[in-house]
Amino acid sequence: MQKPLMVLNQAINSQVIVELKGNREYRGVLDGYDPHMNLVLKNAEELINNEVIRKLSVTIVRGDNVIYISP
Amino acid sequence: MQKPLMVLNQAINSQVIVELKGNREYRGVLDGYDPHMNLVLKNAEELINNEVIRKLSVTIVRGDNVIYISP
Amino acid sequence: MQKPLMVLNQAINSQVIVELKGNREYRGVLDGYDPHMNLVLKNAEELINNEVIRKLSVTIVRGDNVIYISP
Amino acid sequence: MQKPLMVLNQAINSQVIVELKGNREYRGVLDGYDPHMNLVLKNAEELINNEVIRKLSVTIVRGDNVIYISP
Amino acid sequence: MQKPLMVLNQAINSQVIVELKGNREYRGVLDGYDPHMNLVLKNAEELINNEVIRKLSVTIVRGDNVIYISP
Amino acid sequence: MQKPLMVLNQAINSQVIVELKGNREYRGVLDGYDPHMNLVLKNAEELINNEVIRKLSVTIVRGDNVIYISP
Amino acid sequence: MQKPLMVLNQAINSQVIVELKGNREYRGVLDGYDPHMNLVLKNAEELINNEVIRKLSVTIVRGDNVIYISP
Repeated sequence: MQKPLMVLNQAINSQVIVELKGNREYRGVLDGYDPHMNLVLKNAEELINNEVIRKLSVTIVRGDNVIYISP
Repeated sequence: MQKPLMVLNQAINSQVIVELKGNREYRGVLDGYDPHMNLVLKNAEELINNEVIRKLSVTIVRGDNVIYISP
Repeated sequence: MQKPLMVLNQAINSQVIVELKGNREYRGVLDGYDPHMNLVLKNAEELINNEVIRKLSVTIVRGDNVIYISP
Repeated sequence: MQKPLMVLNQAINSQVIVELKGNREYRGVLDGYDPHMNLVLKNAEELINNEVIRKLSVTIVRGDNVIYISP
Repeated sequence: MQKPLMVLNQAINSQVIVELKGNREYRGVLDGYDPHMNLVLKNAEELINNEVIRKLSVTIVRGDNVIYISP
Repeated sequence: MQKPLMVLNQAINSQVIVELKGNREYRGVLDGYDPHMNLVLKNAEELINNEVIRKLSVTIVRGDNVIYISP
Repeated sequence: MQKPLMVLNQAINSQVIVELKGNREYRGVLDGYDPHMNLVLKNAEELINNEVIRKLSVTIVRGDNVIYISP
Protein backbone atom coordinates (compact mmCIF):
# COMPACT_ATOMS: atom_id res chain seq x y z
CA MET A 1 0.00 0.00 0.00
CA GLN A 2 1.32 3.39 -1.05
CA LYS A 3 -0.25 6.73 -0.08
CA PRO A 4 -0.94 9.00 -3.11
CA LEU A 5 1.33 11.80 -1.81
CA MET A 6 4.20 9.32 -1.26
CA VAL A 7 3.96 8.24 -4.88
CA LEU A 8 3.95 11.89 -5.91
CA ASN A 9 7.03 12.43 -3.79
CA GLN A 10 8.85 9.56 -5.52
CA ALA A 11 8.09 11.21 -8.87
CA ILE A 12 10.03 14.39 -8.01
CA ASN A 13 12.56 15.13 -10.78
CA SER A 14 11.01 12.71 -13.23
CA GLN A 15 8.82 13.28 -16.25
CA VAL A 16 5.05 13.23 -15.52
CA ILE A 17 1.79 13.50 -17.43
CA VAL A 18 -0.77 15.71 -15.69
CA GLU A 19 -4.35 15.49 -16.94
CA LEU A 20 -6.57 18.44 -16.04
CA LYS A 21 -10.30 19.06 -16.31
CA GLY A 22 -11.32 20.62 -19.63
CA ASN A 23 -9.17 18.37 -21.86
CA ARG A 24 -5.91 20.03 -20.84
CA GLU A 25 -2.75 18.05 -20.40
CA TYR A 26 0.72 19.00 -19.19
CA ARG A 27 3.91 17.04 -19.66
CA GLY A 28 6.99 18.09 -17.78
CA VAL A 29 9.39 17.39 -14.93
CA LEU A 30 7.77 17.39 -11.50
CA ASP A 31 9.65 19.88 -9.36
CA GLY A 32 7.32 20.16 -6.37
CA TYR A 33 3.87 19.63 -4.89
CA ASP A 34 1.88 20.26 -1.72
CA PRO A 35 -0.96 18.37 0.04
CA HIS A 36 -3.63 20.07 -2.15
CA MET A 37 -1.85 18.55 -5.19
CA ASN A 38 -0.76 22.00 -6.31
CA LEU A 39 2.20 21.15 -8.55
CA VAL A 40 5.40 22.76 -9.85
CA LEU A 41 6.40 21.56 -13.33
CA LYS A 42 9.62 22.40 -15.19
CA ASN A 43 10.08 22.37 -18.97
CA ALA A 44 6.38 21.78 -19.41
CA GLU A 45 4.35 21.43 -22.56
CA GLU A 46 0.66 22.33 -22.47
CA LEU A 47 -1.56 20.25 -24.73
CA ILE A 48 -5.23 20.79 -25.54
CA ASN A 49 -6.85 17.89 -27.40
CA ASN A 50 -3.36 16.32 -27.83
CA GLU A 51 -1.84 19.36 -29.56
CA VAL A 52 1.08 21.25 -27.98
CA ILE A 53 -0.17 24.82 -27.63
CA ARG A 54 2.48 26.31 -25.34
CA LYS A 55 5.83 25.62 -23.71
CA LEU A 56 6.45 26.85 -20.17
CA SER A 57 9.85 26.73 -18.44
CA VAL A 58 8.18 26.77 -15.00
CA THR A 59 4.50 26.48 -14.14
CA ILE A 60 2.48 26.20 -10.94
CA VAL A 61 -0.70 24.16 -11.48
CA ARG A 62 -3.55 24.58 -8.97
CA GLY A 63 -4.48 21.19 -7.57
CA ASP A 64 -8.25 21.42 -7.88
CA ASN A 65 -7.93 21.17 -11.70
CA VAL A 66 -6.08 17.83 -11.58
CA ILE A 67 -7.73 14.60 -12.73
CA TYR A 68 -4.62 12.43 -12.56
CA ILE A 69 -0.84 12.56 -12.42
CA SER A 70 1.10 9.76 -14.03
CA PRO A 71 4.86 9.40 -13.45
CA MET B 1 -21.92 -2.41 8.38
CA GLN B 2 -18.70 -1.57 6.59
CA LYS B 3 -17.20 1.93 6.38
CA PRO B 4 -16.38 3.00 2.77
CA LEU B 5 -12.65 3.45 3.52
CA MET B 6 -12.47 -0.03 5.10
CA VAL B 7 -13.87 -1.55 1.92
CA LEU B 8 -11.33 0.46 -0.07
CA ASN B 9 -8.60 -0.87 2.18
CA GLN B 10 -9.69 -4.47 1.57
CA ALA B 11 -9.41 -3.81 -2.18
CA ILE B 12 -5.67 -3.01 -1.99
CA ASN B 13 -3.78 -5.17 -4.52
CA SER B 14 -6.89 -6.20 -6.38
CA GLN B 15 -8.32 -5.09 -9.70
CA VAL B 16 -10.79 -2.18 -9.45
CA ILE B 17 -13.03 -0.16 -11.75
CA VAL B 18 -12.91 3.57 -11.04
CA GLU B 19 -15.64 5.69 -12.62
CA LEU B 20 -14.86 9.40 -12.85
CA LYS B 21 -16.95 12.44 -13.76
CA GLY B 22 -16.90 13.23 -17.48
CA ASN B 23 -17.37 9.64 -18.72
CA ARG B 24 -13.84 8.57 -17.80
CA GLU B 25 -13.11 5.16 -16.42
CA TYR B 26 -9.95 3.54 -15.09
CA ARG B 27 -9.30 -0.11 -14.61
CA GLY B 28 -6.22 -1.19 -12.71
CA VAL B 29 -4.77 -2.59 -9.50
CA LEU B 30 -5.44 -0.44 -6.43
CA ASP B 31 -2.09 0.34 -4.87
CA GLY B 32 -3.09 3.04 -2.39
CA TYR B 33 -5.62 5.65 -1.25
CA ASP B 34 -6.11 8.38 1.33
CA PRO B 35 -9.17 9.75 3.17
CA HIS B 36 -9.99 12.16 0.28
CA MET B 37 -10.27 9.06 -1.97
CA ASN B 38 -7.16 10.10 -3.85
CA LEU B 39 -6.07 6.79 -5.38
CA VAL B 40 -2.92 5.10 -6.66
CA LEU B 41 -3.53 2.65 -9.51
CA LYS B 42 -0.99 0.30 -11.11
CA ASN B 43 -1.17 -1.10 -14.64
CA ALA B 44 -4.14 1.09 -15.37
CA GLU B 45 -6.14 1.50 -18.52
CA GLU B 46 -7.96 4.76 -19.16
CA LEU B 47 -11.25 4.46 -21.01
CA ILE B 48 -13.41 7.23 -22.41
CA ASN B 49 -16.85 6.09 -23.57
CA ASN B 50 -15.70 2.45 -23.10
CA GLU B 51 -12.68 2.74 -25.40
CA VAL B 52 -9.14 2.24 -24.05
CA ILE B 53 -7.33 5.47 -24.86
CA ARG B 54 -4.17 5.13 -22.77
CA LYS B 55 -2.23 2.70 -20.61
CA LEU B 56 -0.48 4.01 -17.50
CA SER B 57 1.92 1.93 -15.39
CA VAL B 58 1.26 4.13 -12.33
CA THR B 59 -1.31 6.87 -11.89
CA ILE B 60 -2.49 9.07 -9.02
CA VAL B 61 -6.18 9.96 -9.36
CA ARG B 62 -7.46 13.00 -7.46
CA GLY B 63 -10.40 11.95 -5.30
CA ASP B 64 -12.81 14.76 -6.13
CA ASN B 65 -13.26 13.31 -9.64
CA VAL B 66 -14.43 9.92 -8.39
CA ILE B 67 -18.04 8.79 -8.79
CA TYR B 68 -17.52 5.22 -7.64
CA ILE B 69 -14.88 2.57 -7.07
CA SER B 70 -15.81 -1.05 -7.56
CA PRO B 71 -13.47 -3.88 -6.45
CA MET C 1 -37.32 14.43 14.28
CA GLN C 2 -34.76 12.11 12.74
CA LYS C 3 -31.23 13.13 11.75
CA PRO C 4 -30.35 12.20 8.13
CA LEU C 5 -27.43 9.96 9.17
CA MET C 6 -29.65 8.10 11.66
CA VAL C 7 -32.10 7.29 8.89
CA LEU C 8 -29.19 6.13 6.75
CA ASN C 9 -28.06 3.94 9.60
CA GLN C 10 -31.49 2.31 9.89
CA ALA C 11 -31.31 1.48 6.16
CA ILE C 12 -28.20 -0.72 6.59
CA ASN C 13 -28.80 -4.14 5.02
CA SER C 14 -31.89 -3.02 3.16
CA GLN C 15 -32.47 -2.22 -0.48
CA VAL C 16 -31.95 1.48 -1.38
CA ILE C 17 -32.26 3.72 -4.41
CA VAL C 18 -29.36 6.17 -4.76
CA GLU C 19 -29.84 9.02 -7.20
CA LEU C 20 -26.63 10.72 -8.36
CA LYS C 21 -25.92 13.87 -10.34
CA GLY C 22 -25.80 13.28 -14.09
CA ASN C 23 -28.89 11.06 -14.33
CA ARG C 24 -27.19 8.08 -12.71
CA GLU C 25 -29.02 5.80 -10.35
CA TYR C 26 -27.91 2.85 -8.24
CA ARG C 27 -30.10 0.22 -6.67
CA GLY C 28 -28.57 -2.15 -4.18
CA VAL C 29 -28.23 -3.20 -0.56
CA LEU C 30 -26.70 -0.51 1.69
CA ASP C 31 -23.70 -2.04 3.38
CA GLY C 32 -22.08 1.06 4.85
CA TYR C 33 -21.74 4.85 4.89
CA ASP C 34 -19.72 7.62 6.53
CA PRO C 35 -20.54 11.23 7.53
CA HIS C 36 -19.70 12.53 4.00
CA MET C 37 -22.45 10.19 2.67
CA ASN C 38 -19.84 8.03 0.99
CA LEU C 39 -21.71 4.74 0.58
CA VAL C 40 -21.00 1.04 0.23
CA LEU C 41 -23.56 -0.83 -1.88
CA LYS C 42 -23.77 -4.61 -2.43
CA ASN C 43 -25.37 -6.34 -5.41
CA ALA C 44 -25.84 -2.99 -7.10
CA GLU C 45 -27.29 -2.16 -10.47
CA GLU C 46 -26.19 1.02 -12.21
CA LEU C 47 -28.85 2.73 -14.29
CA ILE C 48 -28.45 5.65 -16.67
CA ASN C 49 -31.75 7.11 -17.89
CA ASN C 50 -33.57 4.14 -16.28
CA GLU C 51 -31.61 1.49 -18.17
CA VAL C 52 -29.45 -1.03 -16.31
CA ILE C 53 -25.97 -0.58 -17.75
CA ARG C 54 -23.85 -2.51 -15.27
CA LYS C 55 -24.05 -4.85 -12.29
CA LEU C 56 -21.53 -4.45 -9.47
CA SER C 57 -21.16 -6.90 -6.58
CA VAL C 58 -19.62 -4.20 -4.37
CA THR C 59 -19.28 -0.48 -5.03
CA ILE C 60 -18.09 2.55 -3.05
CA VAL C 61 -19.96 5.69 -4.11
CA ARG C 62 -18.37 9.06 -3.29
CA GLY C 63 -20.82 11.15 -1.31
CA ASP C 64 -20.50 14.42 -3.20
CA ASN C 65 -22.29 12.86 -6.19
CA VAL C 66 -25.40 11.96 -4.20
CA ILE C 67 -28.70 13.79 -4.72
CA TYR C 68 -30.83 11.51 -2.55
CA ILE C 69 -30.90 8.08 -0.95
CA SER C 70 -34.24 6.36 -0.52
CA PRO C 71 -34.60 3.22 1.63
CA MET D 1 -34.62 37.85 13.27
CA GLN D 2 -34.81 34.09 12.78
CA LYS D 3 -31.81 31.87 11.99
CA PRO D 4 -32.36 29.63 8.92
CA LEU D 5 -31.90 26.41 10.89
CA MET D 6 -34.43 27.56 13.52
CA VAL D 7 -37.01 28.06 10.78
CA LEU D 8 -36.17 24.62 9.44
CA ASN D 9 -36.66 23.22 12.92
CA GLN D 10 -40.12 24.78 13.20
CA ALA D 11 -41.07 23.09 9.92
CA ILE D 12 -40.52 19.58 11.32
CA ASN D 13 -43.63 17.43 10.72
CA SER D 14 -45.14 19.86 8.24
CA GLN D 15 -45.38 19.77 4.47
CA VAL D 16 -42.45 21.45 2.66
CA ILE D 17 -41.40 22.22 -0.90
CA VAL D 18 -37.71 21.54 -1.55
CA GLU D 19 -36.26 22.99 -4.74
CA LEU D 20 -33.01 21.38 -5.92
CA LYS D 21 -30.48 22.28 -8.59
CA GLY D 22 -31.29 20.77 -11.98
CA ASN D 23 -35.03 21.58 -11.97
CA ARG D 24 -35.87 18.93 -9.39
CA GLU D 25 -38.45 19.50 -6.74
CA TYR D 26 -39.59 17.45 -3.76
CA ARG D 27 -42.79 17.84 -1.80
CA GLY D 28 -43.19 15.95 1.42
CA VAL D 29 -43.25 16.05 5.20
CA LEU D 30 -40.01 17.24 6.78
CA ASP D 31 -38.87 14.56 9.20
CA GLY D 32 -35.32 15.73 9.93
CA TYR D 33 -32.33 17.85 8.96
CA ASP D 34 -28.75 18.57 10.00
CA PRO D 35 -26.56 21.70 9.83
CA HIS D 36 -25.47 20.91 6.21
CA MET D 37 -29.19 21.08 5.27
CA ASN D 38 -29.23 17.36 4.59
CA LEU D 39 -32.94 16.57 4.89
CA VAL D 40 -35.22 13.63 5.68
CA LEU D 41 -38.57 13.75 3.87
CA LYS D 42 -41.52 11.40 4.37
CA ASN D 43 -44.25 10.65 1.82
CA ALA D 44 -42.33 12.61 -0.77
CA GLU D 45 -43.12 13.24 -4.41
CA GLU D 46 -40.27 13.95 -6.82
CA LEU D 47 -41.09 16.38 -9.61
CA ILE D 48 -38.99 17.23 -12.64
CA ASN D 49 -40.29 20.22 -14.62
CA ASN D 50 -43.47 20.14 -12.49
CA GLU D 51 -44.33 16.53 -13.29
CA VAL D 52 -44.49 13.90 -10.55
CA ILE D 53 -42.00 11.24 -11.63
CA ARG D 54 -41.69 9.20 -8.45
CA LYS D 55 -43.15 8.69 -4.98
CA LEU D 56 -40.80 7.88 -2.11
CA SER D 57 -41.98 6.91 1.39
CA VAL D 58 -38.68 8.09 2.92
CA THR D 59 -35.84 9.97 1.30
CA ILE D 60 -32.58 11.55 2.49
CA VAL D 61 -31.67 14.57 0.38
CA ARG D 62 -28.03 15.74 0.41
CA GLY D 63 -27.90 19.39 1.40
CA ASP D 64 -25.54 20.66 -1.28
CA ASN D 65 -28.25 20.17 -3.91
CA VAL D 66 -30.75 22.44 -2.14
CA ILE D 67 -31.70 25.84 -3.56
CA TYR D 68 -34.52 26.57 -1.12
CA ILE D 69 -36.87 24.92 1.36
CA SER D 70 -40.30 26.41 1.82
CA PRO D 71 -42.58 25.29 4.69
CA MET E 1 -15.85 50.22 6.05
CA GLN E 2 -18.76 47.84 6.63
CA LYS E 3 -18.47 44.06 6.87
CA PRO E 4 -20.86 42.18 4.51
CA LEU E 5 -22.66 40.40 7.35
CA MET E 6 -23.19 43.71 9.21
CA VAL E 7 -24.90 45.15 6.14
CA LEU E 8 -27.02 42.01 5.94
CA ASN E 9 -27.93 42.45 9.58
CA GLN E 10 -29.08 46.04 8.98
CA ALA E 11 -31.36 44.74 6.22
CA ILE E 12 -33.39 42.54 8.59
CA ASN E 13 -37.12 43.30 8.22
CA SER E 14 -36.66 45.24 5.01
CA GLN E 15 -37.38 44.30 1.41
CA VAL E 16 -34.40 42.70 -0.42
CA ILE E 17 -33.58 41.43 -3.89
CA VAL E 18 -31.68 38.13 -3.85
CA GLU E 19 -30.05 37.07 -7.09
CA LEU E 20 -29.20 33.37 -7.36
CA LYS E 21 -27.17 31.33 -9.84
CA GLY E 22 -29.26 30.03 -12.75
CA ASN E 23 -31.17 33.28 -13.44
CA ARG E 24 -33.35 32.94 -10.35
CA GLU E 25 -34.33 35.93 -8.31
CA TYR E 26 -36.23 36.32 -5.04
CA ARG E 27 -37.84 39.44 -3.70
CA GLY E 28 -39.09 39.45 -0.15
CA VAL E 29 -38.57 40.63 3.41
CA LEU E 30 -35.32 39.44 5.00
CA ASP E 31 -36.21 37.62 8.19
CA GLY E 32 -32.90 35.96 9.01
CA TYR E 33 -29.44 34.84 7.87
CA ASP E 34 -26.39 32.97 9.10
CA PRO E 35 -22.65 33.26 8.35
CA HIS E 36 -22.95 30.98 5.25
CA MET E 37 -25.44 33.54 3.84
CA ASN E 38 -28.27 31.04 4.23
CA LEU E 39 -31.30 33.34 4.27
CA VAL E 40 -34.88 33.39 5.56
CA LEU E 41 -37.26 35.41 3.38
CA LYS E 42 -40.91 36.24 4.14
CA ASN E 43 -43.60 37.04 1.59
CA ALA E 44 -41.21 36.14 -1.19
CA GLU E 45 -41.73 36.09 -4.91
CA GLU E 46 -39.61 33.79 -7.05
CA LEU E 47 -38.74 35.12 -10.49
CA ILE E 48 -37.07 33.26 -13.35
CA ASN E 49 -36.02 35.51 -16.23
CA ASN E 50 -37.94 38.39 -14.58
CA GLU E 51 -41.25 36.55 -14.44
CA VAL E 52 -42.95 35.78 -11.11
CA ILE E 53 -43.36 32.02 -11.09
CA ARG E 54 -44.24 31.39 -7.45
CA LYS E 55 -45.15 33.12 -4.19
CA LEU E 56 -43.81 31.72 -0.94
CA SER E 57 -44.87 32.93 2.51
CA VAL E 58 -41.61 31.70 4.07
CA THR E 59 -38.53 30.34 2.34
CA ILE E 60 -35.04 29.27 3.43
CA VAL E 61 -32.48 29.90 0.69
CA ARG E 62 -29.19 27.98 0.86
CA GLY E 63 -26.29 30.45 0.79
CA ASP E 64 -24.12 28.76 -1.82
CA ASN E 65 -26.65 29.70 -4.52
CA VAL E 66 -26.44 33.43 -3.79
CA ILE E 67 -24.77 35.86 -6.21
CA TYR E 68 -25.82 39.04 -4.46
CA ILE E 69 -28.29 40.44 -1.94
CA SER E 70 -29.46 43.99 -2.34
CA PRO E 71 -31.43 45.75 0.43
CA MET F 1 4.87 42.21 -1.92
CA GLN F 2 1.25 43.01 -1.08
CA LYS F 3 -1.29 40.51 0.25
CA PRO F 4 -4.55 40.41 -1.76
CA LEU F 5 -6.71 41.41 1.23
CA MET F 6 -4.42 44.38 1.98
CA VAL F 7 -4.92 45.67 -1.56
CA LEU F 8 -8.65 45.21 -1.13
CA ASN F 9 -8.47 47.17 2.09
CA GLN F 10 -6.70 50.06 0.37
CA ALA F 11 -9.54 50.15 -2.20
CA ILE F 12 -12.20 50.92 0.44
CA ASN F 13 -14.19 54.01 -0.60
CA SER F 14 -12.87 53.97 -4.14
CA GLN F 15 -14.49 52.91 -7.39
CA VAL F 16 -13.88 49.22 -8.32
CA ILE F 17 -14.69 46.85 -11.15
CA VAL F 18 -15.83 43.41 -9.95
CA GLU F 19 -15.90 40.65 -12.53
CA LEU F 20 -18.07 37.64 -11.64
CA LYS F 21 -18.51 34.21 -13.17
CA GLY F 22 -21.24 34.09 -15.84
CA ASN F 23 -20.23 37.33 -17.64
CA ARG F 24 -21.55 39.56 -14.88
CA GLU F 25 -19.77 42.73 -13.91
CA TYR F 26 -20.35 45.25 -11.15
CA ARG F 27 -18.98 48.76 -10.95
CA GLY F 28 -19.37 50.68 -7.72
CA VAL F 29 -17.71 52.05 -4.59
CA LEU F 30 -16.19 49.38 -2.35
CA ASP F 31 -17.72 49.79 1.08
CA GLY F 32 -16.60 46.57 2.74
CA TYR F 33 -15.23 43.05 2.43
CA ASP F 34 -14.39 39.99 4.50
CA PRO F 35 -11.77 37.22 4.17
CA HIS F 36 -14.03 35.15 1.83
CA MET F 37 -14.02 38.18 -0.54
CA ASN F 38 -17.68 38.78 0.17
CA LEU F 39 -18.03 42.44 -0.82
CA VAL F 40 -20.24 45.45 -0.07
CA LEU F 41 -20.64 47.82 -3.00
CA LYS F 42 -22.40 51.21 -2.96
CA ASN F 43 -23.95 52.96 -5.97
CA ALA F 44 -23.35 49.88 -8.05
CA GLU F 45 -24.20 49.18 -11.65
CA GLU F 46 -24.72 45.59 -12.78
CA LEU F 47 -23.60 44.82 -16.31
CA ILE F 48 -24.19 41.64 -18.30
CA ASN F 49 -22.20 41.46 -21.53
CA ASN F 50 -21.18 45.12 -21.02
CA GLU F 51 -24.74 46.44 -20.80
CA VAL F 52 -26.03 48.13 -17.62
CA ILE F 53 -29.05 46.09 -16.59
CA ARG F 54 -29.65 47.35 -13.06
CA LYS F 55 -28.58 50.02 -10.55
CA LEU F 56 -28.29 49.07 -6.89
CA SER F 57 -27.68 51.59 -4.10
CA VAL F 58 -26.19 48.87 -1.85
CA THR F 59 -25.32 45.30 -2.72
CA ILE F 60 -23.63 42.40 -0.95
CA VAL F 61 -21.79 40.14 -3.40
CA ARG F 62 -20.95 36.59 -2.29
CA GLY F 63 -17.22 36.00 -2.69
CA ASP F 64 -17.32 32.63 -4.41
CA ASN F 65 -18.67 34.30 -7.58
CA VAL F 66 -15.72 36.69 -7.91
CA ILE F 67 -13.13 36.30 -10.67
CA TYR F 68 -11.29 39.55 -10.04
CA ILE F 69 -11.62 42.92 -8.34
CA SER F 70 -9.85 45.88 -9.87
CA PRO F 71 -9.57 49.20 -8.00
CA MET G 1 11.91 19.85 -4.58
CA GLN G 2 10.19 23.23 -4.46
CA LYS G 3 6.83 23.89 -2.82
CA PRO G 4 4.31 25.65 -5.14
CA LEU G 5 3.96 28.68 -2.85
CA MET G 6 7.76 29.08 -2.67
CA VAL G 7 7.94 29.23 -6.45
CA LEU G 8 5.13 31.79 -6.40
CA ASN G 9 7.09 33.79 -3.86
CA GLN G 10 10.17 33.82 -6.07
CA ALA G 11 8.04 35.22 -8.91
CA ILE G 12 7.13 38.39 -6.96
CA ASN G 13 7.92 41.47 -9.07
CA SER G 14 8.35 39.50 -12.26
CA GLN G 15 6.07 39.10 -15.26
CA VAL G 16 3.68 36.10 -15.04
CA ILE G 17 1.05 34.41 -17.18
CA VAL G 18 -2.08 33.44 -15.22
CA GLU G 19 -4.46 31.05 -16.92
CA LEU G 20 -8.01 31.00 -15.50
CA LYS G 21 -10.99 28.75 -16.05
CA GLY G 22 -13.24 29.91 -18.90
CA ASN G 23 -10.46 30.70 -21.39
CA ARG G 24 -9.35 33.82 -19.54
CA GLU G 25 -5.71 34.77 -19.29
CA TYR G 26 -3.92 37.55 -17.44
CA ARG G 27 -0.41 38.79 -18.06
CA GLY G 28 1.13 41.18 -15.59
CA VAL G 29 3.64 41.70 -12.77
CA LEU G 30 2.99 39.56 -9.71
CA ASP G 31 2.68 41.90 -6.74
CA GLY G 32 1.29 39.55 -4.12
CA TYR G 33 -0.41 36.27 -3.27
CA ASP G 34 -1.82 34.32 -0.32
CA PRO G 35 -2.12 30.59 0.47
CA HIS G 36 -5.45 30.29 -1.47
CA MET G 37 -3.51 31.49 -4.57
CA ASN G 38 -5.45 34.74 -4.53
CA LEU G 39 -3.13 37.01 -6.54
CA VAL G 40 -2.32 40.71 -6.94
CA LEU G 41 -1.22 41.66 -10.46
CA LYS G 42 0.08 45.07 -11.59
CA ASN G 43 -0.07 46.43 -15.14
CA ALA G 44 -2.17 43.48 -16.18
CA GLU G 45 -3.70 42.65 -19.52
CA GLU G 46 -6.82 40.49 -19.64
CA LEU G 47 -7.08 38.21 -22.64
CA ILE G 48 -10.05 36.10 -23.72
CA ASN G 49 -9.26 33.62 -26.49
CA ASN G 50 -5.82 35.30 -26.91
CA GLU G 51 -7.23 38.78 -27.52
CA VAL G 52 -6.46 41.66 -25.14
CA ILE G 53 -9.84 42.88 -23.96
CA ARG G 54 -8.89 45.10 -21.04
CA LYS G 55 -5.90 46.67 -19.26
CA LEU G 56 -5.94 46.90 -15.48
CA SER G 57 -3.34 48.83 -13.45
CA VAL G 58 -4.04 46.68 -10.36
CA THR G 59 -6.19 43.57 -10.07
CA ILE G 60 -6.93 41.03 -7.36
CA VAL G 61 -7.65 37.59 -8.84
CA ARG G 62 -9.55 35.07 -6.67
CA GLY G 63 -7.53 31.89 -6.41
CA ASP G 64 -10.25 29.36 -7.13
CA ASN G 65 -10.35 30.50 -10.78
CA VAL G 66 -6.66 29.74 -11.38
CA ILE G 67 -5.56 26.84 -13.58
CA TYR G 68 -1.85 27.71 -13.64
CA ILE G 69 0.60 30.52 -13.01
CA SER G 70 3.75 30.65 -15.08
CA PRO G 71 6.59 33.03 -14.17
